[in-house]
Amino acid sequence: MTEKYVYKFFNKEICEGSADMKNLLGGKGANLAEMTSLGLPVPPGFVVSTQACLHFLANNEAYPAGLEEAIDEALVALENHMGKKLGDNEDPLLVSVRSGARISMPGMMDTVLNLGLNDVSVEGLANISNDLRFAYDSYRRFMYMYADVVKGVSKEYFEKELEKLKHELGIENDTDIPASELKNLIQKYKVIYKEHLGEDFPQDSRKQLDDAIRAVFRSWNTRRAIDYRNHQGIPHDLGTAVNVMTMIYGNLGETSATGVAFTRNPSDGEKKLYGEYLVNAQGEDVVAGIRTPIPIEELKIAMPESYNQLLEISELLEERYRDMQDMEFTIQQGKLYMLQTRNGKRTGIAASQIAYDLVNEGRISKEEAILRISPSDVENALFPSVDWGKIDPNAPVKQIKESIANQYLGSGLAAGAAAATGLAIFDADRAKEIADKHQDVILVRVETNPSDFHGMVAANGILTMKGGLTSHAAIVARQIGKACIVGSERGNVEIDEENRELRGNSITIKEGDWITIDGTDGSIYRGELPTTPAELPTEMTKILEWADEFAKLRVIANADKPDQFRTAINFGAQGIGLTRTEHMFFDNLDIVQEMILARTEAERQIAVDKLEPLQQKDFEGLFEAAEGKPITIRLIDPPLHEFLPSEVELLKEIYEARLEGKTEVELKEQYELLEQVKLIKEQNPMLGLRGCRLGITMPMVTEMQSKAIFRAAAKIKKTGKEIMPKVMVPLVGFATEFHNQRKIIDAMAKKIMEEECIEFSYKVGTMIEVPRAALTTAEIAEGEKGVEFISFGTNDLHQMTLGFSRDDAGTFIDIYMQENIIEADPFVTIDQTGVGRLMEMCVKEGRETNPKLECSVCGEHGGDPKSIDFCHRIGLDFVSCSPYRIPIARLAAGHAALKNK
Amino acid sequence: MTEKYVYKFFNKEICEGSADMKNLLGGKGANLAEMTSLGLPVPPGFVVSTQACLHFLANNEAYPAGLEEAIDEALVALENHMGKKLGDNEDPLLVSVRSGARISMPGMMDTVLNLGLNDVSVEGLANISNDLRFAYDSYRRFMYMYADVVKGVSKEYFEKELEKLKHELGIENDTDIPASELKNLIQKYKVIYKEHLGEDFPQDSRKQLDDAIRAVFRSWNTRRAIDYRNHQGIPHDLGTAVNVMTMIYGNLGETSATGVAFTRNPSDGEKKLYGEYLVNAQGEDVVAGIRTPIPIEELKIAMPESYNQLLEISELLEERYRDMQDMEFTIQQGKLYMLQTRNGKRTGIAASQIAYDLVNEGRISKEEAILRISPSDVENALFPSVDWGKIDPNAPVKQIKESIANQYLGSGLAAGAAAATGLAIFDADRAKEIADKHQDVILVRVETNPSDFHGMVAANGILTMKGGLTSHAAIVARQIGKACIVGSERGNVEIDEENRELRGNSITIKEGDWITIDGTDGSIYRGELPTTPAELPTEMTKILEWADEFAKLRVIANADKPDQFRTAINFGAQGIGLTRTEHMFFDNLDIVQEMILARTEAERQIAVDKLEPLQQKDFEGLFEAAEGKPITIRLIDPPLHEFLPSEVELLKEIYEARLEGKTEVELKEQYELLEQVKLIKEQNPMLGLRGCRLGITMPMVTEMQSKAIFRAAAKIKKTGKEIMPKVMVPLVGFATEFHNQRKIIDAMAKKIMEEECIEFSYKVGTMIEVPRAALTTAEIAEGEKGVEFISFGTNDLHQMTLGFSRDDAGTFIDIYMQENIIEADPFVTIDQTGVGRLMEMCVKEGRETNPKLECSVCGEHGGDPKSIDFCHRIGLDFVSCSPYRIPIARLAAGHAALKNK
Repeated sequence: MTEKYVYKFFNKEICEGSADMKNLLGGKGANLAEMTSLGLPVPPGFVVSTQACLHFLANNEAYPAGLEEAIDEALVALENHMGKKLGDNEDPLLVSVRSGARISMPGMMDTVLNLGLNDVSVEGLANISNDLRFAYDSYRRFMYMYADVVKGVSKEYFEKELEKLKHELGIENDTDIPASELKNLIQKYKVIYKEHLGEDFPQDSRKQLDDAIRAVFRSWNTRRAIDYRNHQGIPHDLGTAVNVMTMIYGNLGETSATGVAFTRNPSDGEKKLYGEYLVNAQGEDVVAGIRTPIPIEELKIAMPESYNQLLEISELLEERYRDMQDMEFTIQQGKLYMLQTRNGKRTGIAASQIAYDLVNEGRISKEEAILRISPSDVENALFPSVDWGKIDPNAPVKQIKESIANQYLGSGLAAGAAAATGLAIFDADRAKEIADKHQDVILVRVETNPSDFHGMVAANGILTMKGGLTSHAAIVARQIGKACIVGSERGNVEIDEENRELRGNSITIKEGDWITIDGTDGSIYRGELPTTPAELPTEMTKILEWADEFAKLRVIANADKPDQFRTAINFGAQGIGLTRTEHMFFDNLDIVQEMILARTEAERQIAVDKLEPLQQKDFEGLFEAAEGKPITIRLIDPPLHEFLPSEVELLKEIYEARLEGKTEVELKEQYELLEQVKLIKEQNPMLGLRGCRLGITMPMVTEMQSKAIFRAAAKIKKTGKEIMPKVMVPLVGFATEFHNQRKIIDAMAKKIMEEECIEFSYKVGTMIEVPRAALTTAEIAEGEKGVEFISFGTNDLHQMTLGFSRDDAGTFIDIYMQENIIEADPFVTIDQTGVGRLMEMCVKEGRETNPKLECSVCGEHGGDPKSIDFCHRIGLDFVSCSPYRIPIARLAAGHAALKNK
Repeated sequence: MTEKYVYKFFNKEICEGSADMKNLLGGKGANLAEMTSLGLPVPPGFVVSTQACLHFLANNEAYPAGLEEAIDEALVALENHMGKKLGDNEDPLLVSVRSGARISMPGMMDTVLNLGLNDVSVEGLANISNDLRFAYDSYRRFMYMYADVVKGVSKEYFEKELEKLKHELGIENDTDIPASELKNLIQKYKVIYKEHLGEDFPQDSRKQLDDAIRAVFRSWNTRRAIDYRNHQGIPHDLGTAVNVMTMIYGNLGETSATGVAFTRNPSDGEKKLYGEYLVNAQGEDVVAGIRTPIPIEELKIAMPESYNQLLEISELLEERYRDMQDMEFTIQQGKLYMLQTRNGKRTGIAASQIAYDLVNEGRISKEEAILRISPSDVENALFPSVDWGKIDPNAPVKQIKESIANQYLGSGLAAGAAAATGLAIFDADRAKEIADKHQDVILVRVETNPSDFHGMVAANGILTMKGGLTSHAAIVARQIGKACIVGSERGNVEIDEENRELRGNSITIKEGDWITIDGTDGSIYRGELPTTPAELPTEMTKILEWADEFAKLRVIANADKPDQFRTAINFGAQGIGLTRTEHMFFDNLDIVQEMILARTEAERQIAVDKLEPLQQKDFEGLFEAAEGKPITIRLIDPPLHEFLPSEVELLKEIYEARLEGKTEVELKEQYELLEQVKLIKEQNPMLGLRGCRLGITMPMVTEMQSKAIFRAAAKIKKTGKEIMPKVMVPLVGFATEFHNQRKIIDAMAKKIMEEECIEFSYKVGTMIEVPRAALTTAEIAEGEKGVEFISFGTNDLHQMTLGFSRDDAGTFIDIYMQENIIEADPFVTIDQTGVGRLMEMCVKEGRETNPKLECSVCGEHGGDPKSIDFCHRIGLDFVSCSPYRIPIARLAAGHAALKNK
């Protein structure tokens, strides 16, 4: 017995498929069969299975045994069922041939409509439709679609001929071409076809069908389909099904129509039929956007019967699929047909509204509701966006964008999915100055560095020319919840800081001009586009609370300042997983430079002593804002030269001064500073004197920071508030490094408790960012001197394990993704095979020597859903991420718990 | 029953120890007991065991139960045995109290001589020796030694008093001070003692003994002893024994003498009694170097009986210890006593001669001979050294060095244990130019980089101000076998390239002045000191061949040029484990810059095509030199900016030109280059666009290199010679990276074989230097696309696993070693716990998917004996090291096989 490759869906009785057969029939085919078996009006047809496709592709384009016969049999059965015959000269059967994979790949594979037309059957179609023009137009359309899709002749050749004809006739719309001219056009199409393929346009409809099926099979492996699957992470071994379905016409007069409808509003989730349609049109006309569709409500008046039937079907499908449906329908001379149904795409806000409503309607469980929301739904719901509807409530977004093309400068990388508008300002100080006057500002920089922080905070958004999605600008923007576009140079948008100009697409923006940056797609516009503000909808908040109930991972925040703490806690953070202390150093650069450039230990101690009260004050603010939740404070991490001007900057400054006539003697101080800077300069600062290496070679810094932490803790605790400091030593690679630092920290805690006559508890732990630390965690976690907690600094851990400098790898990561050398940017999603393996070893072995070891992650990966799933699976206790990622992380933690049950 | 803590050695019958009791009795004590039991004339005494010391140290300086009684008992027994009494006024027993640990720690712990003297017994000593002056002098010496060693009063106070006395008396030699004056001096010493300690000098000899024993115990934990053990890797829990032995006097007139003798010549290994002695002297006089000792041959004439007895004893001890002995002896009034024996230290040359002879004499096995030679013996034997004997054949080296202190500039780090002399030249071009005129040159640079290579090759030695033992200068110097001192700034020796001066210790060397660098200790001298050239002695070569017989690891070489290949093969390399191709790029910088700065792919291809024949010619030379042995050729590895001038250099050049009046327009070309350099510049080049990342983003480079390799292979094979190319892809972190590159290489090999109508075999593999590679070797080694061999690039693997930049970590590695955070410099010895764990995983898992996988190491660690031992244990096939390390590696490989049996 040969395998079954062909599945019919003729009516409720003759229906060989169902919704759960997506693997075999593809999404579209399975849903067509499902609707058929529900008794809905689906044009009869059959599906050739994905298995047939896979055999075809694996066997040098040969059909499996029995497939041809099965298609013959199904076709004859369909002809009998419909009482029509393919290629018939009186009442021909016409079919559409459509691809349909298990996972929807919109636009990626091929479709042929009106198949069955030839020189003979076109007359039959004219006869039966009583519309010669319609018949010839259908034949014409079929011809070029066939030539294009099945034979690979670009449809441009055919379109050119059509345009020529319209020009000759002085006609604008296709519909005005008379039938006789269309008949001539068909002859011309035949010539084009023969010219390109050396054969006549096929008149054998059975052959047409066969070739169309083969073309659809083949389209599984086109370059764009493969690229799409790679990009979306869809396996390559699924194959596509082929849907062969009786043609239905929405363009047979004023009682015909075609449209799309959603069972609920995909923008806001409202439970109400939503959609649009065109009278006397075919599906492709809706897509082409030539005519403006009519809101679905009007169908109620125009064709009340069909409207009510659609409403009923809508209810039935939601009942069946337990989710909002996106339906395609056609009304042929007053009769409604359903051409497709599938779960509808929706905005983040709609997603939460619908999921929440479905739970309340008793249709789905809380677990299902959580899983229905995707991280990008939360992300979308969270950020302000350009309000295209305010520009033109009726036009599609694409069209609006085209209409403002003269305002469009180009695109960079979308680093924070928010939109923002403001005056373009080219330095941080000025940005702050202007923002302080309640002006909206976009900070525009070639790239940002920590000293731009105040300007970034002050601005509505940040635009940089250089850097990638994990550049300083991008990371800080996400952390502080700002719109951000980085690397605008990729879209040929140039930032000229010297002349304070932003240039792209022949547009020049001068300082103080309004610009809009759309962080959803990286677009940069001149002028102020309207935006809608961020707000996490109540339903979304509710669903996140449900997610918390199931999650094993707790979500904490990376935050450096009290206001960030409060944002994080509002978003549901259960503590602070990473507070970087160096931001406070950047705020006091003069003292820090004094410390670095000290010539004696005593001089250095004086500078360090000046920093202590400043640090203490910072920590007091943090403890107050944390409301008793644990705060993980990381001791100073960056290399010292980050606090000094660069050699190149200094050199330029000196030489510019000399060009202005200053002598070397007059510049003595600058020359001395230059010498110091050269001494401290490092070849590879990432692997140099930083992290705990600073604390070990300059113990007074660790002493000072510990003192500030514990004094602040004592002071706040005395006010009756709870405090829970966790001191985190960065960049440990050897247990002995940690022991060295812990000794200083413990001694200081003891000292302060005695001095202040107060007891408080605290923990000491380390970041795991050096591969060696992950390889020796058993030792690092062992005993009284060992760590109480670890937190993966996944950014650095990736940098070192992969040997990719975050600042430099941009030059090859893009190429690596194109060449499929890596699946994802490792600075976005944890490299599970390499780094992940280290992390898993680390957690397992660390807990063997210290069963109470708290394990978390606090790199940028802490806010990435795929990475969070991995963190769940290796048994971490916490993920820590920037405040605005917290809702996403909470959802992802819930997902991880539910998916890995 | 209490533990036994005291062991007597009175004579053959009463002897409680032996040579194999070193753990308990220390090396000195065990050997004294051994000699006693052999019936040799050893002054009777007893040993207090290391166990007593450990108890003392662990219990707040309390003796273990029974120790005091046991010492009492042993002392009484000794008194009875000797017929003398401690502190006796007629014939007092005097003893020496000496430390003696299991492992010799010369000079690290304390010794007290003449113990037992007091105001009463000194008269007894005078009486029995019939020499009042001798008695008082002995008492005086004992007093200050006791004050210094036991009580911690510096002996300087006492010496000052002695000098004062001699000055008053107008006397030069101690021996000329009359007894009466010595008696007065003793009174003065008593005053000094009381002044410092607030108590009288102790007259109770039993208390003296007790305090001396305690002082020796305590000396185990002095700072210098701890530091020494840390440095030498000696455990801290061994403790020291205390040797209490009857005093013997070599200073009782012309029939008394004291000396040291070796059973064979420690310089060249000749089998002949070697040593020196002083008549009428005590041991410390020999050490003090005040009088010139007499060669031991003269003892044959002066005291033939003692000489012959010593000769017999020498033979007996060699028989017993099966090794060359270093003996201390004293002749007291014609009677020979043996005070110590131990295995003698020797030069590398002597070590091989002695070991070889002992095998031929049937005393030791080949295995023992191999283990008797240490890697530093091979190293010492290999390099030229300063020939101190030529400066003064009679003076000790220390004295010669003092005599030329005005030529001494200071010391850097000894990077290659060789000495060299030449004219100081401050740039590579000049160095080559002058060396080409057959002048000896030392290349003196602030630091070196690859573009200095020709100058380094031309010079006799290299001196740099910056950098550590693994800096470019140090690595290249070892590879090409040059004397080298790096980091001279640590010894305050400054290199001023601008003024072409080298300054230190108030000496200024100008370009063209002679200097000598002594790579054995890092010393830098003005002038030309004599040196002796390198030569591997025949016996050493023989022993290395024996080592090869036992070794499991095969030794191959890191070598880039044909003459290095030949050196390596002469030293016994079985192939080439690493040939860096970038040296050839540096030789053609103009074309390489053309390639880098190309504006189009076509332009770039033109530059690459120009490189191909140059590369091919290089490879032809390599294949010829390799004589059919496998050559591992690594594709280009360094980041591209290494081939361009640095931003800082360019900026300086531009501004200097502008200061001279050039306009920006005139400098257009330089400004353009600057822009390019800025574009290519990386934050962390170590983790940037280099290694296979270059070959993947610029496939034409891999194509060009493969073409050059295989064309060269084909050409040489056609001449009838064997060739075995192994192509090594650098910096792989993902299996997919390797697959990408292997595809290009395999395709090129196929193409060349077809074009040239010849078949040849080759292998493709990768370096393991990125931690991720080590974590995923199973995948990298799997299947047809996988690697055939791997080679650990341990330098980079350490850099990334530890997060230590080799160029920058110098700033903290020293402190880390001082603070015991790390045991050894990880760029010298493999970090077994961290990196080693990765290496072990890698080898094990790689062989699981590819059982034929060849594994090797080719970083600098390949020449480090400890690392080689580790490589043996994890089952590597090869270690690859620089040519001049090959003999050392061969020995170490033999050691590893024998030690890990």
